[in-house]
Amino acid sequence: MIIINLELIKSIAMPSPTRIVLLVIDGLGGLPHPQTGKTELETADTPNLDQLATEGICGLIDPVSPGITPGSAPGHLALFGYNPVSFNIGRGVLEAIGIDFDLQPEDVAARGNFCTVDKAGLVTDRRAGRISTNQCSELCRLLDGLVIENVKTLVCPVREHRFIAVFRGKALVSDVTDSDPQQIGVAPRIITPLRPEADRMASIANQFITQAKEILADHYPANMALLRGFSQQPHFPTMGEVYKLKPAAIASYPMYRGLAKLVGMEVLETGATIEDEFATLKQNYTNYDFFFLHIKGTDSAGEDGDFDRKVRVIEQVDTALPQLMNLKPDVIVVTGDHSTPATLRGHSWHPVPLLLHSRWCRRDKISQFSESACVLGGLGRFPATHIMPLAMANALKLTKFGA
Amino acid sequence: MIIINLELIKSIAMPSPTRIVLLVIDGLGGLPHPQTGKTELETADTPNLDQLATEGICGLIDPVSPGITPGSAPGHLALFGYNPVSFNIGRGVLEAIGIDFDLQPEDVAARGNFCTVDKAGLVTDRRAGRISTNQCSELCRLLDGLVIENVKTLVCPVREHRFIAVFRGKALVSDVTDSDPQQIGVAPRIITPLRPEADRMASIANQFITQAKEILADHYPANMALLRGFSQQPHFPTMGEVYKLKPAAIASYPMYRGLAKLVGMEVLETGATIEDEFATLKQNYTNYDFFFLHIKGTDSAGEDGDFDRKVRVIEQVDTALPQLMNLKPDVIVVTGDHSTPATLRGHSWHPVPLLLHSRWCRRDKISQFSESACVLGGLGRFPATHIMPLAMANALKLTKFGA
Repeated sequence: MIIINLELIKSIAMPSPTRIVLLVIDGLGGLPHPQTGKTELETADTPNLDQLATEGICGLIDPVSPGITPGSAPGHLALFGYNPVSFNIGRGVLEAIGIDFDLQPEDVAARGNFCTVDKAGLVTDRRAGRISTNQCSELCRLLDGLVIENVKTLVCPVREHRFIAVFRGKALVSDVTDSDPQQIGVAPRIITPLRPEADRMASIANQFITQAKEILADHYPANMALLRGFSQQPHFPTMGEVYKLKPAAIASYPMYRGLAKLVGMEVLETGATIEDEFATLKQNYTNYDFFFLHIKGTDSAGEDGDFDRKVRVIEQVDTALPQLMNLKPDVIVVTGDHSTPATLRGHSWHPVPLLLHSRWCRRDKISQFSESACVLGGLGRFPATHIMPLAMANALKLTKFGA
Repeated sequence: MIIINLELIKSIAMPSPTRIVLLVIDGLGGLPHPQTGKTELETADTPNLDQLATEGICGLIDPVSPGITPGSAPGHLALFGYNPVSFNIGRGVLEAIGIDFDLQPEDVAARGNFCTVDKAGLVTDRRAGRISTNQCSELCRLLDGLVIENVKTLVCPVREHRFIAVFRGKALVSDVTDSDPQQIGVAPRIITPLRPEADRMASIANQFITQAKEILADHYPANMALLRGFSQQPHFPTMGEVYKLKPAAIASYPMYRGLAKLVGMEVLETGATIEDEFATLKQNYTNYDFFFLHIKGTDSAGEDGDFDRKVRVIEQVDTALPQLMNLKPDVIVVTGDHSTPATLRGHSWHPVPLLLHSRWCRRDKISQFSESACVLGGLGRFPATHIMPLAMANALKLTKFGA
């Protein structure tokens, strides 16, 4: 379905000198504070966002579908116009992206867990008692660099018991099953090919696990490793191909840089603060016609359950916003990849406020950028995959469909 | 996708003595005038539309999808309930429809351009300097009536350098490539079959072009012809089959009569003015149970960038409206096939105001028919393909789905 839609967009997209800035405030949407009845965004003092809302048009987006809580990958793919259900990124690849691992096109990546097995070889703890990240790094060093049938194995720590195993060699095919049984009291599973071409990958992965078991034998509780989510870099149509854009990403966190790279954005060097990111936008403004600017702090605060800190990050974004507004992009979109209400301490399914600012946006009556105001916005409630076509249309970058 | 939907509607549609009138004000949606902040519809004095809005329920429709600017064909197919992406009409057929050409079921129609080629045969101007419609007619007369392998070629002028070439013969298959290279500095392309059954069509089309080149040789700048969009009349399920309706179309422009014919409406004879069209409705009111009444002037004014004229046409429609209201149709729907804001001088992607008036509509609080009022209407924002099921339901012409 969406393939047709990207094809449709591709058939009507045209280059133009206009510019689009997509400002993603991660986990923007929230829930009311029990004492005040106001969400994080409603609590924050945001004169600049409110000005954009007043001059623009607002609405609420569903990143995936009502009721579905998105992870970062589907949340962002939807913002970039890619159906997050059909455009799937394997777990191994996603973990590699998340730690800025320089994945090569033929690499096969798997997500790993250090775990505990008993004498009979049955899994007793899938997370090896959540060993520290330091311990994880030491164990990864023991496994890193093994060569099996001319395939080199690269093992890198992620966090606590989590790591990635990347298999680098010629003509590997990632369609194999997991060794992780996803339950305790059973033995790790033998990895099997899902199609004949993946026979070799399955064999190498099983050999790796056999060797890992020997190497880890004396490292109780982390005396075994489980692998799952074998995958290779997906080949998505790039934003350049689909939208005829020259897109750039400004993000201080690896995961978002990696996602941007997967859809063909150029990832710009930037610093860690909000001010750094806005400065990077200004420095590179004339070189691209689309910018994805990602703010992480809101989501982190929400996940920590820190309502006040999330409010402060939103206010910091608002304070920095005039730097973006002064560039006068033809289209500004401000939204989030999902909601992260501090009261829920995690991502949630609630729709996300969105504002679109452009000369041609058909302004609505909303004068405050907030969840409750956006309910009545002129854009209504719509799937996040429509954001890119809307932004492109407002930038006059789409010709008519059909005669 | 939509095939299932039409099948579903077909399975629950039932004939009934109720009547539906779908009034399409072409290009109805607009954008605010820079001085007043009001759209064309908001500027117009429309007591009758406002009365219908007050008694009815309002909303905003997306003809294709948010951000997509529809041509007339997809805009109308959506209004008639046909998914405008999957129900595709070839370019040649669409041009033929647009000039009221009496296309036969087996005819293959192509869109033609008179163009200029240099001595080497390379295209130097794809539009032959936009020759006049008169010149075009004369040249068409030279090419009209050629017979190639028992296939007769009918050539008719459209406007300026544009014409249609219709190939009339037995068992022709239209799946062939274009000769129009869509760029200058290259030779016209040889037409090739896209499947074996189209071999003969490709051969005949190439022979036609060879003969046309000889005939046009001395008619610089129009010394060659380019063909594209070879197509045959699509076989859409008719509105009679799908909705069990006896539908009639009242439209003074050929394109809309042609589109109505494609979905099986009977096209009524009518005059050129709004009053003529409403009179035709009255005269034929008892003979049909569905009427598509098309107003062209709003779109033309919008395309000309004439804000005030678009306002006046809307007011003329409003003045004529009591003739329709006095017939007391069970369901009245008023909307457009797309927006045509005068400030943009062309079709646009903005959603279109819609009102639905019926005894069973669940009235909302809207009392003005306008873009900004419809944002808050009881129907919300929805795809135009839902209009027909809604109208049918309100006319009590749909039984329950499932037990």
